[in-house]
Amino acid sequence: KMPRRVLYIVLFMGALPLLAEMSQGHISVVLLGATGDLAKKYLWQGLFQLYMDQVSSGHSFTFHGAALTALEPGQKLMFDVLKRLACPPDESPDRCAVLKDQFLKLSQYHQLKTAENYTVLNREIEMLLHQEGLKETGRIFYFSVPPFAYTEIARHINSSCRPPPGAWLRVVLEKPFGHDLESAQQLAAELMSFFREEEMYRVDHYLGKQAIAHILPFRDQNRQFLDPIWNRHHVERVEIVLKEIVDAKGRTSFYEQYGVIRDVLQNHLTEALMFLTMEIPANLSRAEEVLQCKLQSLQSLRGLEKHSAVLGQYQAYASHVQEELQKGQDYVSTTPTFAGVLVHSDNLRWEGVPFLLTSGKALDERVGYVRVLFKNRAYCTQSETLRDAGHSQCKAKQIIFYIGHGTLNTPAVLVSRNLFRPVMPEGSWREVVGQPDLHIFGQPLSDYYVYSPVKERDAYSVLISNIYHGRKDFFITTENLLASWAFWTPLLNSISHQPPRLYPGGVENQHFLDFEMVSGELAFTVAEPVELLNPNRPTPSDYKTIQSKFRQSPLVSAWSEVLISQLASDVEKTANRAVAHSGQFHLALSGGSSPVALFQRLARHHYAFPWRHTHIWLVDERCVPLTDPESNFFSLHHHLLQSVRVPYFNIHPMPVHLNQRLCVEEDGGTELYAKEITALVANASFDLVLLGLGTDGHTASLFPNSENGLEGAQTVVLTESPVKPHQRMSLSLPLINKARQVFVLVVGKGKHDITTQISRVGREPEKWPISGVSPSSGQLVWYVDYEALLG
Amino acid sequence: KMPRRVLYIVLFMGALPLLAEMSQGHISVVLLGATGDLAKKYLWQGLFQLYMDQVSSGHSFTFHGAALTALEPGQKLMFDVLKRLACPPDESPDRCAVLKDQFLKLSQYHQLKTAENYTVLNREIEMLLHQEGLKETGRIFYFSVPPFAYTEIARHINSSCRPPPGAWLRVVLEKPFGHDLESAQQLAAELMSFFREEEMYRVDHYLGKQAIAHILPFRDQNRQFLDPIWNRHHVERVEIVLKEIVDAKGRTSFYEQYGVIRDVLQNHLTEALMFLTMEIPANLSRAEEVLQCKLQSLQSLRGLEKHSAVLGQYQAYASHVQEELQKGQDYVSTTPTFAGVLVHSDNLRWEGVPFLLTSGKALDERVGYVRVLFKNRAYCTQSETLRDAGHSQCKAKQIIFYIGHGTLNTPAVLVSRNLFRPVMPEGSWREVVGQPDLHIFGQPLSDYYVYSPVKERDAYSVLISNIYHGRKDFFITTENLLASWAFWTPLLNSISHQPPRLYPGGVENQHFLDFEMVSGELAFTVAEPVELLNPNRPTPSDYKTIQSKFRQSPLVSAWSEVLISQLASDVEKTANRAVAHSGQFHLALSGGSSPVALFQRLARHHYAFPWRHTHIWLVDERCVPLTDPESNFFSLHHHLLQSVRVPYFNIHPMPVHLNQRLCVEEDGGTELYAKEITALVANASFDLVLLGLGTDGHTASLFPNSENGLEGAQTVVLTESPVKPHQRMSLSLPLINKARQVFVLVVGKGKHDITTQISRVGREPEKWPISGVSPSSGQLVWYVDYEALLG
Repeated sequence: KMPRRVLYIVLFMGALPLLAEMSQGHISVVLLGATGDLAKKYLWQGLFQLYMDQVSSGHSFTFHGAALTALEPGQKLMFDVLKRLACPPDESPDRCAVLKDQFLKLSQYHQLKTAENYTVLNREIEMLLHQEGLKETGRIFYFSVPPFAYTEIARHINSSCRPPPGAWLRVVLEKPFGHDLESAQQLAAELMSFFREEEMYRVDHYLGKQAIAHILPFRDQNRQFLDPIWNRHHVERVEIVLKEIVDAKGRTSFYEQYGVIRDVLQNHLTEALMFLTMEIPANLSRAEEVLQCKLQSLQSLRGLEKHSAVLGQYQAYASHVQEELQKGQDYVSTTPTFAGVLVHSDNLRWEGVPFLLTSGKALDERVGYVRVLFKNRAYCTQSETLRDAGHSQCKAKQIIFYIGHGTLNTPAVLVSRNLFRPVMPEGSWREVVGQPDLHIFGQPLSDYYVYSPVKERDAYSVLISNIYHGRKDFFITTENLLASWAFWTPLLNSISHQPPRLYPGGVENQHFLDFEMVSGELAFTVAEPVELLNPNRPTPSDYKTIQSKFRQSPLVSAWSEVLISQLASDVEKTANRAVAHSGQFHLALSGGSSPVALFQRLARHHYAFPWRHTHIWLVDERCVPLTDPESNFFSLHHHLLQSVRVPYFNIHPMPVHLNQRLCVEEDGGTELYAKEITALVANASFDLVLLGLGTDGHTASLFPNSENGLEGAQTVVLTESPVKPHQRMSLSLPLINKARQVFVLVVGKGKHDITTQISRVGREPEKWPISGVSPSSGQLVWYVDYEALLG
Repeated sequence: KMPRRVLYIVLFMGALPLLAEMSQGHISVVLLGATGDLAKKYLWQGLFQLYMDQVSSGHSFTFHGAALTALEPGQKLMFDVLKRLACPPDESPDRCAVLKDQFLKLSQYHQLKTAENYTVLNREIEMLLHQEGLKETGRIFYFSVPPFAYTEIARHINSSCRPPPGAWLRVVLEKPFGHDLESAQQLAAELMSFFREEEMYRVDHYLGKQAIAHILPFRDQNRQFLDPIWNRHHVERVEIVLKEIVDAKGRTSFYEQYGVIRDVLQNHLTEALMFLTMEIPANLSRAEEVLQCKLQSLQSLRGLEKHSAVLGQYQAYASHVQEELQKGQDYVSTTPTFAGVLVHSDNLRWEGVPFLLTSGKALDERVGYVRVLFKNRAYCTQSETLRDAGHSQCKAKQIIFYIGHGTLNTPAVLVSRNLFRPVMPEGSWREVVGQPDLHIFGQPLSDYYVYSPVKERDAYSVLISNIYHGRKDFFITTENLLASWAFWTPLLNSISHQPPRLYPGGVENQHFLDFEMVSGELAFTVAEPVELLNPNRPTPSDYKTIQSKFRQSPLVSAWSEVLISQLASDVEKTANRAVAHSGQFHLALSGGSSPVALFQRLARHHYAFPWRHTHIWLVDERCVPLTDPESNFFSLHHHLLQSVRVPYFNIHPMPVHLNQRLCVEEDGGTELYAKEITALVANASFDLVLLGLGTDGHTASLFPNSENGLEGAQTVVLTESPVKPHQRMSLSLPLINKARQVFVLVVGKGKHDITTQISRVGREPEKWPISGVSPSSGQLVWYVDYEALLG
């Protein structure tokens, strides 16, 4: 019966003499999971659209639905779907009816369960091609099946269903593509054992959404306007948003494992982000270049931290999970159904621009958009009345790629009229006028140039067309996928046990999910009302500092975060006092991990710090080049110096690297540093020395039983550490004890034992170097956090 | 007749037995220019207010009006003014009538013209005090006279009218206080020869405007809310605005010499700016500390350039000038009647925050305000309808000190409700409610907490009260004044011949005076319509660069400003190319004065420069410590490095200072630098070397007939300069010639002769070291300005 089907094409296409001459090649499409939800809802319609669009392309087609169901019932199920295929409004009903009839005849159901089933399918395709004398162009296998089935199907296709040389194979894969970096790598490795990279088409259906798919062409066609402003100097912020009204009810078996970040942010919103941030290759039609630029952009995203995100869970979620997954009343889910994430790119173009990715279920409206808000750089001299009348430069400037739903209820591209009139492709987008009273993003619609697609197309039909055209840039490559997981996995790990904020759902959420950026982190703007508190969540810690004595000296203690902020304030106070007194502030800083939080705090919160008058010295250094990430100075530079304005002349790294070698005694590094101190620091008495404490009782790089530095006249010494890198340079105890002020910072549970121990011992620097810290005329203050102090 | 007047005080105050016991001290107020405009309009009313407020203070008063007019007519003129003094609405009419009567009786007119007049005045005051047995507290001399009269009056007061020891002298001076830095210094020096600093009260009546006067107290009382947000991380921009409807008609004899910047920006708007930006001392009541903080803030303003301002002149101004000053039709005035100026502070707190100072005549409304607009850091998850309903964090956040007039028509302090409810002093400010439909600064009035003064007070009455209380922080100290002129004078000089944009005036200005910030400069947002162009204005110079050849290499030539901006762009292009190619950019820079303009341009206009990947090397250095202002590195640091973010590790000053001595051969500085270059720069080939040219043909620190560096294997050499400091370190010619790119910058008339000479000679490095510059495989480009090229 096959021949007759192909004949239909011929009949429709006109009087071509022979089948083989007519078809420039045949394409077989195999839809795996042909009777599943996705297939019913989108994929068959997309394939039918492909057929309508390409029936005159010169290619001939056959469509093979496949599932685990046996032939008879499967066939019935599938043809029930096919009979309901819709004719698009822009198609003539007559042509559509003819084509639909043909499409049905070109479609066939197969049970694909065993290895043999696949061999049979392959034989049938080959036979048809042979009988009709058709050249094979390629085969598309669309995996609309759950991920656990991927490997087996892939194995069968690879071993039994590959087309002959000269024809291509394209396998189309649907998410989820793993659960985190590791599982994604594993899945990718398996697939790679069956298919070559160019054979795989991983679908993110957002890349088929018309507004998203138009971001790159828009940027390309409007380069003349965007080139000067598409950067951190002009862009104030970017919002990438997908809000849903529905909740997760009925889908919790999937949702409970994934949550909103894996479900929406890792894929859809990240893809949109890439289209905005990537550099545009000279020629957009080169898929590899587009993919390369996209990958680079993805790799330049700054790593996320726990506080890069705010998380929510709609209140009824717990009961949905308990019902659907048969969990007990005491089961607590931390799966977020709402997330706002602050993303930064380290790319020079975007440095500092906040990208806010937001998505959630059970919100007050359904809408999706990508909004680029530009900085307001204008001052309008005339009064407000006049200003509001025209399209003044003082009004907000924005470009919005409106995905759909919401107020507009159509895909659209909006450009503020005070920016520029965009170039839009005439055939596919048209300008929309009217609805002047509609307000959107804070402005009347009349403030924008608004464009919507001439023909609204479903994402899947866009993507299926791109599979046919081999446009790999509309799909997710393995590299791209893994880079995205590499970016998201650390955040997912760090929040996996964090209780999300509960929200009531719908309009009742009010301002409850509003969030804001606070020094590079996100936080909800309103405090959590008590009645919504989950009784199971841990109560907030007591955030007060206590003041007492430790080893006869003042002790400041608090939870580490509060302790660090207190310490930072005290350092600033000391600095201001020193500058007021002598015009300068000589600060000696220790290496190690504890002071990093202090450095960051100083960099981000102490704007009035007198950096211009501060000299930075090192308490100790590892014998590695300064540019080595192991170097104390490198860390200090990274976390503090690069963010503040200390004059170059006031920065005094230890000279561990002289004559291209490290800490060689003859090079005289210690003498050099000692001389520098003598030359600049009055009486060699630092205004402030910041010390740490090691678990063995060491401080600076003065270790127990050190030969140097615990006593004697030498002020800067070379020492040996029990841990790598062994060689160190350090200020000596006698020099440290000359300081006007010494702060010792001790943080973390790991320091509890040594803290307890040294609280009991006397002055025994040989055994515990820290016990030798005792400023002769200065003041010593201990900053010990609760964990170190109380265990 | 005097005694009776003083008796009135006693009568009103109650039954105090004796005059001398009653008065804790007597104050004589002398108003010079007692019949002038300012006195008529504000000063007498202010003095009357002072009397009303202080009549029960324990001090007794007499008021002495003075002018050049003879006694009889002067007396009549003055008492005509006094009779019209108004009673404030909050004063009971009875009390006011009694007090007004007393005030008139305590007031007396004096002709003050000759030295003898002053002696007589002094004697009269002394006599009265003696007769009444009054202790003298102090004397106030209010100079309401033109500035040319200052010196003589000051001399007379100093020589004849000083109170006896133990009583104070306060002289009150009205602007203008000079015309630029030089004239202000001169005037200040003259005044300083007659009065001590603490005796002088320079009035800027803006400091008496209630909204302005409340900026500091507001900041102080709201520290808890402002501390975290009053900085560059939270403030988006600040607008300081004084718009007038009136034009300069009738005042052109003054205005034509001053213009809007001297008239309004240098004083009023700068003072408001200081109140916003200064650090607040712990105790606001310490005037010296307030003044000190203010001065520091003024000194940390970044220098203005020509393009820091946009200038306008209302169209009818020219005819007003021609009429009033009897100028011919060909007289062209470049006096601006409108200015917008972009000010930046280099203080860490404000770095990068734009302060827009704007004022003009013949605008569409009369209004004055100081507006602090905060960054929008929030994302509001709910739909816009909900968002607009409440006081969501997504609405604009601003604090406005409303000076008066405009929509509100009252002094006011406005704070967005989504910021905080401010602490306001209850007795003097009250919350205003109502007028919810009024829109101001883009939002309904109901979005703000609005406060207005309980009692509206005229600026002069506030200031006169502060003179009485000796609150010097309400006045302009000499230091403060000169710092302000030091800040404004360079801009005034650079624009003195620049034709301002003409504007029609009033509402017709439309968007015509709107301006915007473009990479650190200001520009009008709409192009100048041709019909408004003044046919008389000088045609703009031809600002094109010419491109040609010089010594067989490409030549770029232009007026120096354009040349420098072209060079800076070319340097950035080279940098981006190098970074794209190898991930880093090795740039070797010369010392001397020519590159300073380049450094500044790079620091201020090239924000996208890949500094993070740039290595900075020195072409040559003077044998002085790096911290010596003579050092090339010091200048480079000052003009460029301190403003950009080059990693510490990438900065490579020449090691001229080793072992506490300078350029001693045995210390091996040249070898050290050579090794550093070899270690970091691939093939020791710099990506770009920037050279200059000396009038003797030297380049780098390679001088004619130098023993070192013109040839040979040594890459870094010590040389001798014919001028001080003689000892130098320099890259050698062979090393320079290995660079991929060499730019030679030659600027100024002084270089014309040598430019001409070397354009003609061949390769003779012994004679003209510059002629030996010829990159072996790199490119050489000459940047020579018109002055150097054409003389």
